Amino acid sequence: MGAVSHIDLRSDTVTKPTEGMRAAMARAEVGDDVYGEDPTVRRLEETVAGLFGMEAALFTPTGSMANLLAVRSLVAPGQEVLCESSAHIARAELGAHGAFFGVTMRTWTGERGRIDHAAIAAMFAPDVSPFFVATKAISVENTHNFGGGTVQPLADIEALRPLVDAHGIGLHVDGARIWNAHVASGVPLADYGRPADVLTVCLSKGLGAPVGSLVLGSRAMVQEAVVWRKRLGGGMRQVGMLAAAGLYALEHHLDRLAEDHEHARLLAEACGADPAAVDTNIVVVDVPDAAAVVRAAADQGVLVSALGPTTVRLVTHLDVSREQAETAASVLKASVAG
Amino acid sequence: MGAVSHIDLRSDTVTKPTEGMRAAMARAEVGDDVYGEDPTVRRLEETVAGLFGMEAALFTPTGSMANLLAVRSLVAPGQEVLCESSAHIARAELGAHGAFFGVTMRTWTGERGRIDHAAIAAMFAPDVSPFFVATKAISVENTHNFGGGTVQPLADIEALRPLVDAHGIGLHVDGARIWNAHVASGVPLADYGRPADVLTVCLSKGLGAPVGSLVLGSRAMVQEAVVWRKRLGGGMRQVGMLAAAGLYALEHHLDRLAEDHEHARLLAEACGADPAAVDTNIVVVDVPDAAAVVRAAADQGVLVSALGPTTVRLVTHLDVSREQAETAASVLKASVAG
Amino acid sequence: MGAVSHIDLRSDTVTKPTEGMRAAMARAEVGDDVYGEDPTVRRLEETVAGLFGMEAALFTPTGSMANLLAVRSLVAPGQEVLCESSAHIARAELGAHGAFFGVTMRTWTGERGRIDHAAIAAMFAPDVSPFFVATKAISVENTHNFGGGTVQPLADIEALRPLVDAHGIGLHVDGARIWNAHVASGVPLADYGRPADVLTVCLSKGLGAPVGSLVLGSRAMVQEAVVWRKRLGGGMRQVGMLAAAGLYALEHHLDRLAEDHEHARLLAEACGADPAAVDTNIVVVDVPDAAAVVRAAADQGVLVSALGPTTVRLVTHLDVSREQAETAASVLKASVAG
Amino acid sequence: MGAVSHIDLRSDTVTKPTEGMRAAMARAEVGDDVYGEDPTVRRLEETVAGLFGMEAALFTPTGSMANLLAVRSLVAPGQEVLCESSAHIARAELGAHGAFFGVTMRTWTGERGRIDHAAIAAMFAPDVSPFFVATKAISVENTHNFGGGTVQPLADIEALRPLVDAHGIGLHVDGARIWNAHVASGVPLADYGRPADVLTVCLSKGLGAPVGSLVLGSRAMVQEAVVWRKRLGGGMRQVGMLAAAGLYALEHHLDRLAEDHEHARLLAEACGADPAAVDTNIVVVDVPDAAAVVRAAADQGVLVSALGPTTVRLVTHLDVSREQAETAASVLKASVAG
Repeated sequence: MGAVSHIDLRSDTVTKPTEGMRAAMARAEVGDDVYGEDPTVRRLEETVAGLFGMEAALFTPTGSMANLLAVRSLVAPGQEVLCESSAHIARAELGAHGAFFGVTMRTWTGERGRIDHAAIAAMFAPDVSPFFVATKAISVENTHNFGGGTVQPLADIEALRPLVDAHGIGLHVDGARIWNAHVASGVPLADYGRPADVLTVCLSKGLGAPVGSLVLGSRAMVQEAVVWRKRLGGGMRQVGMLAAAGLYALEHHLDRLAEDHEHARLLAEACGADPAAVDTNIVVVDVPDAAAVVRAAADQGVLVSALGPTTVRLVTHLDVSREQAETAASVLKASVAG
Repeated sequence: MGAVSHIDLRSDTVTKPTEGMRAAMARAEVGDDVYGEDPTVRRLEETVAGLFGMEAALFTPTGSMANLLAVRSLVAPGQEVLCESSAHIARAELGAHGAFFGVTMRTWTGERGRIDHAAIAAMFAPDVSPFFVATKAISVENTHNFGGGTVQPLADIEALRPLVDAHGIGLHVDGARIWNAHVASGVPLADYGRPADVLTVCLSKGLGAPVGSLVLGSRAMVQEAVVWRKRLGGGMRQVGMLAAAGLYALEHHLDRLAEDHEHARLLAEACGADPAAVDTNIVVVDVPDAAAVVRAAADQGVLVSALGPTTVRLVTHLDVSREQAETAASVLKASVAG
Repeated sequence: MGAVSHIDLRSDTVTKPTEGMRAAMARAEVGDDVYGEDPTVRRLEETVAGLFGMEAALFTPTGSMANLLAVRSLVAPGQEVLCESSAHIARAELGAHGAFFGVTMRTWTGERGRIDHAAIAAMFAPDVSPFFVATKAISVENTHNFGGGTVQPLADIEALRPLVDAHGIGLHVDGARIWNAHVASGVPLADYGRPADVLTVCLSKGLGAPVGSLVLGSRAMVQEAVVWRKRLGGGMRQVGMLAAAGLYALEHHLDRLAEDHEHARLLAEACGADPAAVDTNIVVVDVPDAAAVVRAAADQGVLVSALGPTTVRLVTHLDVSREQAETAASVLKASVAG
Repeated sequence: MGAVSHIDLRSDTVTKPTEGMRAAMARAEVGDDVYGEDPTVRRLEETVAGLFGMEAALFTPTGSMANLLAVRSLVAPGQEVLCESSAHIARAELGAHGAFFGVTMRTWTGERGRIDHAAIAAMFAPDVSPFFVATKAISVENTHNFGGGTVQPLADIEALRPLVDAHGIGLHVDGARIWNAHVASGVPLADYGRPADVLTVCLSKGLGAPVGSLVLGSRAMVQEAVVWRKRLGGGMRQVGMLAAAGLYALEHHLDRLAEDHEHARLLAEACGADPAAVDTNIVVVDVPDAAAVVRAAADQGVLVSALGPTTVRLVTHLDVSREQAETAASVLKASVAG
């Protein structure tokens, strides 16, 4: 698996640093980031906070840790966050929010992972008696990974603010792939930052950095997150080389996400999936037997994932060229056809 | 609140021990239950396990602690239980399952709290890769309190077994008010015990005991639960007097639950609620302004609860006679009419 | 075990309610204590708070839960409490403080469980950098159970205040057997309350109530503790009958603890233990083979515990008369002699 | 702080990657390590496991995370580990073992952090009744950081095995600086691995890698640790560049630790500290006013840490040359003299 000759559509996490990125990493100025002395990390944190108009940002080894710090900053042990039932925080973080921070979740199920305002309103319970769990945050994933790279319309996110504000609770946006949302929708990054109390973003997915994510919010939130990041074992030392990769990625790999989105639509058409359901770089295809499709495609050098027994997921990224996307399309067309 | 002259419909937890029950308590044989030496507790545990055909049972100070021990026995930190979004374990236990046992929840929303097999099938994910949270239990509340005392049809519970068995996970039934389900449906208690891996029941609700619940399951589960009950601070000493109340309640207060159900239907009709939605002793009434109804009724000596801004809950029980139910009905008719 | 004919010296938790206590329980006025409506519970809480000069008190099902609520009120997840290495909170609460509240402990080892000011000063670290765990409380057990019922001199406790005050942290006194300390030392209860930020006391040990403890502190602490008690599953309903036992015990069983202390000295002498090391109702005896002594004594109808392979513990209490103490003394003299 | 012209003796974590190391990083072969596909990480893990004769190893972002995974593999929630009272796991990991894994600690205080077999034997309690916390692991730090870089004699570690084996519990060695112990004592790395059930080692301290640690143990332990590492948010993607730095460090920076040890002795002598208490690269100096010494030295371009109000710590490392050590010695001599 993962050898050079494969076309790897399992995830956009599989990208390898380019020569330019490696060079930027090799020459990065570094310091001990536990002491707050790594200048490249600091530059990355300030740059990303600036892009989204947030007060401050903190580098983390993974998006999962960024999400842990984000939700923890809003929800105390024994309180709850509401999220979509296939959100990354609910499904793909191994129950860490409960296991480590005692957070409770209740979930709604949205069309392709979308916000469902009526469902949220029905579940929302921030100001109940001391006998009930209190809703302290709503979390929205944008784009929504398991929904199929779904872009949450900005208006849908903004429409949560009155509810959130009226009760003094928090809105978390899991923006691991917010870069894709931005490129697909044309919504400026700062507009995505505005409605979020806490925002998480990843450098190691579509942007193609090898490692790294950030959690963004108020200065006070980030100061607390520094301590909790260390408590989780995420306080790394001369991490500036990873930050340099992130800075390089922001400069060179953001606009080109549009190509990934084109490649995704191309794959969707080949597989008979609805292209209108392809907002960004993720394609979810319903098939009779996902495991069989995964095997058949792999035999032809195309790696894809089974999301469930009858669901295959294809993800395009920096390491899939136009030509490879076309090759993959024809392989998958055959594999899906059986 | 709660003075003698009130008719208290806030909950069936408010009942006071009768003279007969007090006498039974006063003469109870006791021992140090932490050392397993309280004969009355042991008799209660064996009696209740026997009623449901379960191997063993353990007395707990509250239904919440019984539920904590039940879910913990099936779900490890970082794993998940699926339940209805207004289940008692999700809403009314202050997030304890996450806070103390690192349990994650995902929820479906059922009509009046009912089991929704399609929703469960869509969420169910017990055998996923090591990157995902694994479903380890399904929890069903019967009767469902916030759904309005809803009886879960036995067939609906039994229909979960193939799914559960196929994946070696567990089924928890929160039977805090299973006595009401039994009396309303005529389903024998042993039939309710059969599909459950772990079952919790309360003595202090409809049955009218002052304190006490039990968690039922295999002998091994109960042995572990003894240790975790002590860790939670629930290992009480000469608790036989409370157990005596429970034994008394089982003998004298089980069949009479039918009266509470009649009183509930009577209240529903008076309030313009659909009597077909009143399965047992709980009535949920939609009103324009719940707080106003609570106040108006209280002024006339009838205590009810607001479940939400436009929802009032009425609960009948041992300490509400036919005559009081009729008085309350006329008071509430006026209060709801505004 | 525990049958009528035995003399049970395993613990002072084994006492059974007297006829007078049972009568007091049977006539107790009760209400739903989750709603704060049980008048007898309220009276007990106010009475005990008053005895110690504390603002407020909360009834709990066990001393372990009282200690959990006490330490939690002072120490957040990831912070530490310092205590003696054989303190009840360290040894006999099944690691609950870490398991449920994420509390860290560091321990000193004191002579017979005593406070060691030099050791505490060496470990104490409340104001360190954000890279270190912060000391947030010191916990002292009085009397110290596994130390052998050791009375902590009041001056030793008071001498912790300057340290605690200088850094704004908290002092917890685990006073499960503070009644024994009071009777043995003549120190007024209010003097024991004064240096403590949070104090826990038990009704079900020397005082002879069947069930129940209290946690005492500021009104704000108790208000929070009500919620956490419910989260732990300790929010019981008509619990006034248990509170009535506690009130009865305070009135009738406090002064008589002096008899238990006399009996303990009598037993110590018989066993060749140093009577100067017997402060209260607990005797720790070093023997070559504790298990053998436990068996030999049991064969003669005297129940004692092995604390370790070469340590036997004897505890006197309400259900051991002078005559029984003398009988036990002669049995144990023979058993220890082998 | 930390500018080029300073001599930084605050910690051996402050080293910056050399040109050779940067080059090795820049050309590292990488893959997605969450999918187990990073060849350089795999090579590092196999290399380090091999050095210590352990079955398997797992790369982690920090030593704190490695220790978390190590202790978790031996101690379940509500169980305890025994360790020295100033051990890194007790003092410098922000209470994470309790906060995230519900682990309880009891501590002994050793001369310069040393193992105290008598104290351990007195506290050790693995097979007690279900009412007590059970000792499940002993943890030893080698070298002991806050003890002053103390080497634990191999025989002292090995002498714990009979105790540990007799009760089926585990021995954890926190070998963040085991490389220094190895170079100072001449004990082969494999001999250090043998008595440990689980061993943690750091690449980012004396060895001079920018980021990274490993936890070593059985294959089964490492398989579980992969999942818990991801749950903690430590599952990074193309992490081979960091692993390449570690491999480079093992090849080029291990033997040269002897120079750091020489420099440490030189500093100790200058400061009037006992050179016999300097086992490796850490010097602890007692001074009247630590903060004043820190300031005075910093004014002369030498950075050191205050460990406590009257304790200063000096740490030598890769980025402190002989010449710089001599300069620092004369600066510190003056600073300490006041």
